This record gives sequence, C-alpha cells and structure tokens, in this order.
Amino acid sequence: MASKAWCGSAILLALLFTIVKPSYGGITSKYVRKAQPSIDMPLKDYPPPKGYNAPEQVHITQGDHTGRAIIISWITPVEPTPDTVTYWPAKEPCEKKVAKASTITYKYYTYTSGYIHHATIKELEYDTKYFYEIACDESVRQFHFSTPPAPGPDVPYTFGIIGDLGQTYASKETLSHYISNKNAQAMLFLGDLSYADDYPNHDNVRWDTWGRLVERSVAYQPWIWTPGNHEIDFDQDIGEIEPFKPYNHRCPTPYKASGSTSPLWYSVKRASAYIIVLSSYSAYGKYTPQYQWLEKEFPKVNRSETPWLIILVHSPWYNSNGYHYMEGETMRVQFEKWVVQNKVDLVFAGHVHSYERSFRISNIKYNITNGLSFPVNDSSAPMYFTLGDGGNIEGLAAEFSAPQPEYSAFREASFGHAILDIKNRTHAHFTWHRNQDDKPVAADSTWVFNRYWFAQDETNCKLPA
Amino acid sequence: MASKAWCGSAILLALLFTIVKPSYGGITSKYVRKAQPSIDMPLKDYPPPKGYNAPEQVHITQGDHTGRAIIISWITPVEPTPDTVTYWPAKEPCEKKVAKASTITYKYYTYTSGYIHHATIKELEYDTKYFYEIACDESVRQFHFSTPPAPGPDVPYTFGIIGDLGQTYASKETLSHYISNKNAQAMLFLGDLSYADDYPNHDNVRWDTWGRLVERSVAYQPWIWTPGNHEIDFDQDIGEIEPFKPYNHRCPTPYKASGSTSPLWYSVKRASAYIIVLSSYSAYGKYTPQYQWLEKEFPKVNRSETPWLIILVHSPWYNSNGYHYMEGETMRVQFEKWVVQNKVDLVFAGHVHSYERSFRISNIKYNITNGLSFPVNDSSAPMYFTLGDGGNIEGLAAEFSAPQPEYSAFREASFGHAILDIKNRTHAHFTWHRNQDDKPVAADSTWVFNRYWFAQDETNCKLPA
Repeated sequence: MASKAWCGSAILLALLFTIVKPSYGGITSKYVRKAQPSIDMPLKDYPPPKGYNAPEQVHITQGDHTGRAIIISWITPVEPTPDTVTYWPAKEPCEKKVAKASTITYKYYTYTSGYIHHATIKELEYDTKYFYEIACDESVRQFHFSTPPAPGPDVPYTFGIIGDLGQTYASKETLSHYISNKNAQAMLFLGDLSYADDYPNHDNVRWDTWGRLVERSVAYQPWIWTPGNHEIDFDQDIGEIEPFKPYNHRCPTPYKASGSTSPLWYSVKRASAYIIVLSSYSAYGKYTPQYQWLEKEFPKVNRSETPWLIILVHSPWYNSNGYHYMEGETMRVQFEKWVVQNKVDLVFAGHVHSYERSFRISNIKYNITNGLSFPVNDSSAPMYFTLGDGGNIEGLAAEFSAPQPEYSAFREASFGHAILDIKNRTHAHFTWHRNQDDKPVAADSTWVFNRYWFAQDETNCKLPA
Repeated sequence: MASKAWCGSAILLALLFTIVKPSYGGITSKYVRKAQPSIDMPLKDYPPPKGYNAPEQVHITQGDHTGRAIIISWITPVEPTPDTVTYWPAKEPCEKKVAKASTITYKYYTYTSGYIHHATIKELEYDTKYFYEIACDESVRQFHFSTPPAPGPDVPYTFGIIGDLGQTYASKETLSHYISNKNAQAMLFLGDLSYADDYPNHDNVRWDTWGRLVERSVAYQPWIWTPGNHEIDFDQDIGEIEPFKPYNHRCPTPYKASGSTSPLWYSVKRASAYIIVLSSYSAYGKYTPQYQWLEKEFPKVNRSETPWLIILVHSPWYNSNGYHYMEGETMRVQFEKWVVQNKVDLVFAGHVHSYERSFRISNIKYNITNGLSFPVNDSSAPMYFTLGDGGNIEGLAAEFSAPQPEYSAFREASFGHAILDIKNRTHAHFTWHRNQDDKPVAADSTWVFNRYWFAQDETNCKLPA
C-alpha cells in the first residue's frame, strides 16, 4: 500500500510530467496462450468440507453502502442449522458476537438446494480485521475478513477484478494466481459465475461446486457481484421462467442501502471508490426502475469523499472482438451520455472471453440525422475494460476485428485477472495478469488519472508503478 | 369490407400502376389544432352503471392465439360476485353458456381495487356474433362482440389504432370519433391508458374512471393491449415497486398462447394479420426472456396464412418530434435488424403526442467503425407510425425538428385515431383521422403494400381507397 508521502510525490511527479499528445495506436498482443482444454474439473475435485452437515460455499459481500457491514453466506447440505455465525475483532478475541441468518432453499427443475443462509452483520469498525466461525466441533469452519477504511478521498485501496470465471482448470489457475497477489482487498466480480447453465437442465450442482471452488477467496474478502447472462437461468423448456433464480438465492447484494429496488443493480462506497453495478439483462429503458435509479444515483456521488467513480457491467459497451460484438450497444446508447457527463473513471465489463482496454473515448453526439456516430477521444470519458477472461468452459474469444479500431488500446486473447491499485485521489494503477505468467508480471498496465481531480491524458505516462 | 372480386382488381390495378421513383419529400402539416384545455373530465362525468354492485369497466381482449377465444373482464365494486358471464351466439339465443372468471383485487398505496374478474371463453366459432351478459335483475349488463374470421391470407379485416388515450375531453372526442367509424373490428391500442400516474400517489380511482370511459368501445370489440410508460406505476416514494401492478391486474393478455412468459409481450393472429406486441419497458437485451421470445417468434410467422406482419410497441423507433426524441433508440438498435430481415409490414408506436408516418427506411448497417449510421430507403423495412395522439392530459407534442428529416413522410401535431383496412394479401389502406374532423375525412392516408407478397413502393400510389 502506498503511503501518503508516496502519494504526494506521485502527484508532484505527475504534475511535472510532460503530457505528450498520444499517438493512439492500439496494440494487439502477439502472445498466444498455451493450448489447454477448457473443460470443467470433475465433481470429485470439489470435495465438501469435513464433518457432518459442515457449512460450505462460504462467501461474503459488502453489506451496506459504506463498508461497515458484511453479508456472510453459507450453505448447509443436510440440516437447516447452523443458521448463526460467531464473529469477533482479531484484536479482541473475547468480544464474540453472534448473528443470525435468514435461511432459504430453492428448487430448480429436479434440483433442490441445500439450506442457504445469509447473515448481515452491521456496525463493524472500519479498517479492522474480524474472524468469523460457523458451526462447531468437527464441522466448524473459521475464516476472517477485513473491513475497509472509512470512505475518504485519499484512502488507498486495491481491488481485484475477475469476470466469467467458471470452474475449469483454467478458472482454478486464475483464482490461485489472484489469491497469490496479497495486495488485493476486495473483488469486483463482473458476472458469469458458475456456468451451470451450460449443463443439461442447468444442473445446479454446478452452482454448488462453483461455491466450493471460490470459497478460498470469497470467504476472506468481499466479492462485489455483477449479474451476467449465465446468471439468468431462464429455461422455458423445463418450466424455469423466473430470471436469476439461483443467483438471487445465492448471492445477496446490499441493494436497498443504495435505494435500489432490485439486487441486480446497486452501488457501494468502498474506501476512495464509488462503485455502481448495472444489470445488462434487466430493463434499462427510460422510466424503468433501473433507469430511474441510475438517474438519481449520479448526483449522490461526492467526488470529494469518493473520487473514483467505477461502473461494473457484464456486457461491454466497447470491445473489438467478434465474440458478442456490439451486444452491449443498446445499454451504451442508453447510458453513455450520463457516464461521460458524470466523468466516470473506469467501466469494467466481462462477457467477452478475452482482455481489452480502450482509450478514453465517447460516442454520444449521434442524433440519427447528423452522422456523428464515431467514437472520439474524450477526456471526460472513462477507460473501458473487457475482462471476461476468467477461464470458463466456453474457451477463449480469439477473433479480434482487423484492423484494430482506433478506440482499442490493448487486446489479447488470454485468461487472467486484473488489479486496480488506487493510490490517492488522482492516481490509480491498473495491471492485467495472464494466469500463465508469474505473479509479478503485468501483461498490460496503465496509469489511471482521476477524471474529477486530475483529468490528464495517461497515454504516454511513464510514472513508475 | 372489400369483396374478393374487388381484391383481384386492386391487385391488377396495382400491378399495372407505374411505380414512380418517389421524391421522398416529407410533409409537415400546416394544420393547427383548435385550442382546447387538456384536462381530465371531472369524476362526476364517469357515473357507474345503475344498480347495486353493477359490473363496470367491462372490457374484452383476444383470448388465444388465433381468435377463437376472448377474455371478458369486469369489476364489481362491492361484492366479489357476479363472477360468471353468460354468453350465446346471436343466431342461437337458446344456446346459453356460462363461464366462470378468476377474481382478484389489488392494493396500491391507500387504494384498494374492486373485485376484478377475468373470464376466458374458448372454442368460439370464427366470424360469429356473440352476446354476453353479466349480473341479473336491475344490475344486468349486456354487450356483444364478433369473433374474427379464421386466419387466412386474403381475409379482409379492419383495425382501429389509438395510443396515449387518457381521459380528457379530447380523449372522449377521439373515442367517439373512433366509435362512429363502424368499419373497425378490433383495436390495436399502443399503450398509455389512464394516466392515473399523473395524479398524486397514482390515484388508481383514475384507472377506474378510464375503465368506465372506454367501456363503450372495448366492451364490444377486443382491444389488443401494449404496455406504455404510464402503465409502469413504479413509485418508490410510496413503496410501490412492483412495475405494471395496476395494468397487469386489469388488462390480461393471452401471452401464454404465443409461448411468452410475460403478459407484457406476446402475439396474436387475427384474420390476415400477425400482431407482435413488444414491451418498451421490460428487458430486451440479448439473452433476456423478451429477446429469446422474439427470436423464436419470427420463424413461426407463416406469411401464407397471415401475410400482414405488424408490430405494436409504445416508444417509437423513428419519429422527429422533440418530445421523447430517440427514447426508443435502444430498442431500435436491438431489434431493427430482425424487423427488416423478417419484412415486417408496419410498426405502430405511441408515446409522442402527435401523428407521424415514416417512409420505408432502415438503419442497420452501423458497426461503430464504419460510419454507416443514416436511415436509408429499404424496401424490406416497415413503415413506422407514431400514434400517441389519443388526446391525454399531457397535451400535444408540437415541436417537430426542422428541417423535417428525410425519413419522415408526414407529421402533424393533432389528436386523432387511425384505421388500417386490410383488403387482401397484397394491399391495405391506412388512414389517420383528426378527432376534430368529420368522420370520413382522412388527414393523412397511404396505401400499404405487403412486404412478403407485393414489396413495391407505395409512395406515389394513386389507387382509390
């Protein structure tokens, strides 16, 4: 983590740094990922934890708007209890408290879920490590997490970013690679979790195995959830017509805290970041709940408290891959103007199984008759990242359009994860890590200058990370 | 109604008719509607029918996919009965049958609805007049309707078309004007019914008054419902967060018959027309239920059975009014390609409180980098009509863009209704009627040549109507 002294000198360095007019020549990486089957690991590779009815698939997410609450979720396979979780500050092991969960089950075609428990723990101290424990005796499970510092403009914070993870050998590699990076404090997850819907009748056992796979990370740091198309689980042929049924039962979000009426779109503040989660697969036309919510959301963002305004969405608005090309276009048409007006810093999307980074561009002048329909450089626009490269069963999306469009800065067909390292109110550093490289290597990286506090061009910035 | 002999000669005339290359100069009408306050009629102007607990707000809609079923709906204000309807063929008064309704109520903020009854009557004969009666003694109400002929390629049929009706003096004028046209057999209603949501707390009493206002038409001929933004009734401030609650309780649609999973989008066949209803305010991104449904819907359309493919949607994809300009753009971006590929004949929208007709144009070549973003003439494209001109409380949308864009064929800021008179598989005649004109006058009219059977240019067609 960068110290405040470091931040000061970084700002100074940046101010001194001569901004060179960028050439805007995008890079299509020559790296070719090693051949590897994109197959899911067999069921035997996901053993349940030891002990009778042991809590499993433990996962946490932020539980309120500012980071003082956490939602702890777990599943008990046989009995509806334990439905409580014991927690205590790491420094005060005698200050144990108990929180009770709400417990639900659901059916999906012939599948019946275990007992799914969600416990919201509120009024935690900021910037504090907590332990928590579920069950007792032979079945006990113990984990820990750390709350973020209180929201503030120069609070350094490091996010991990993964999309379209799935549960293949590559998924496991991505996850291990990510976990080996000890700096990341919370995950921005960009949707498409288990890919259970790629199995006959959306075999929901694959939701359970996915929960077991990711527990090693998500039981210890909150994953901020974004819904993807593989969460819809709409299948009329088997009578399953309630969109997002498994996802909504398994992955709660603190949506009410941001005035949302749906768990599929919401916002959280975390340290110096304001994170807005959108749903590509809900209604977003004018007058709809999501549209109304987002319209009211932007004025709530105080860049003096949370300088970094970040949007998570599953379907990218800008990418140049043949796979899913322009699928995010309708939401772009609807919301891009607001995003630019409100100087959003970063938009992270998944969906396309590759990595891509855009320049700061916008395409918001089109009025049908004026022909102004090209993406143009725009210093108020966000950088767009496509990070659907978790490594799922559907394989790589390797067919990039040629020539590389001008809006595309870097693209590569590999699996990996990303890290966003926020230094202070002006500077953040973004790195993308192929899952076949050693941890310290960043296959792509860029400085990100805050659009509200320091809206300079990053293109040729040579600051040390 | 045109006879088959007439149809034959019309085809002949049309084939002989020299297609002149159109000039594509659009007309902005100079007509100025007489000043009239756009205020809702007072509550006293909507008296309930006579008799204790008399059934009111009687309305019918098609009840299946082909026109052999009808849904009869009514509201009893005090008692949950009568919940049955008696019906018989006009020619067989002794063949009385009784259908039982399902009965529901709903609450909206401080409002509680009356008992809302919906009875689906199946296995009716095609092309037959039926009487139906609800209640008895002093409260009895009797109405009648006619089933359409069986679907077939050359079955003449006449539709009325109204959008954004509301309940002002102008609304009443539009309705009376429409009813005075005795040819129309069924209504394509383009959304925005009561405008109750313009009242404090969406005063649902205004849903009831609207039901009383329109009964004089909709109790006698089916209105095919399209959801508009004024049906959303989403108001978080008063805790009403279930979109479309009043609408869905009051206006059933036969959505399951077309494989839809939501009453908000569906299709019906009626005579020679295949009518697809879309929801502007539901999700339509790729993978969503509405998208999946529409994708499967087009291949089901058999133009040899139902030559006329018509789409109803609330928010227009093409219009040139400043009011709500480009609000339908996101759905256009999503679905226009399919509409052109499938040679849809006509798209009717509401939303903008004016009348507008487009030439046959499309704008489907845009790929972000190619600049091909202009609407161009396209003989496979539908004509787009904006008919949000029912006359509601929000007044006229009189600010058209200048100059008139090339895609716009005729536009006028007046209230009115339209008639689509299908003659046979190749020809239909469309007329638009200002509600301040005498009935026979059409302020705008056009021949419509079927895109599947006779995809000629109508622009300079001088056939007699």
